[in-house]
Amino acid sequence: MPAGVAAPVAHAPSGQHVLADLNGISAEKLSNCAALETLLRGAADAAGAQVLFSHFHAFGEGQGVTGVVLLAESHITIHTWPECGFAAADIFMCGNSQPELALALIKKALQPGSAHVHTARRGPPVF
Amino acid sequence: MPAGVAAPVAHAPSGQHVLADLNGISAEKLSNCAALETLLRGAADAAGAQVLFSHFHAFGEGQGVTGVVLLAESHITIHTWPECGFAAADIFMCGNSQPELALALIKKALQPGSAHVHTARRGPPVF
Repeated sequence: MPAGVAAPVAHAPSGQHVLADLNGISAEKLSNCAALETLLRGAADAAGAQVLFSHFHAFGEGQGVTGVVLLAESHITIHTWPECGFAAADIFMCGNSQPELALALIKKALQPGSAHVHTARRGPPVF
Repeated sequence: MPAGVAAPVAHAPSGQHVLADLNGISAEKLSNCAALETLLRGAADAAGAQVLFSHFHAFGEGQGVTGVVLLAESHITIHTWPECGFAAADIFMCGNSQPELALALIKKALQPGSAHVHTARRGPPVF
């Protein structure tokens, strides 16, 4: 663990998983691999989550991007199709992080014309 | 691209996202980082998906694991809590891959006592 980097904090397994299908986004935004990685790492920060690792893959010049930010709280992913103006983003956070703040930052940056957002509760059964 | 590795194939953005909350799993299985990475890469193969990259993080001896397999078709992730016997797995695949075959392999290996599985359709609006 490098100096100055806090050890990950253990979180309870219950959490929220936000599935956001984002439409009508400019192709340029959806093919910019470096900008998408910066955006999703910023979205983790905005939500109060701790980034462990990130990896983003560009399928080629002007093509889509697939990427993940692994968190102490679970993950954020994005998969983009510039040719369709479409991105599928996932924000899965356990503990006390606020996935809605991550989604707000992503929407502010990508400016989708429309969004279909579904939130699922994750975790062991509640008795 | 190394010799012998096929270039990723472009897939249509519509797909299925399987959210599987798996309970009653032995702590030993849920803290074995290397075995979980091998399992999820095998699950991608079983589904007919193409692995681009994987990264798995162990939180510490006997503790949970968080990991991702990025696919040409989207991703598989897992987050585990050995202390609760719980794992949250996601299998998100676009194109013609078969996420149900990936889930079957994961369940066969982890042997959960119970599972709550929710499948969401992802993609642009269908007109």
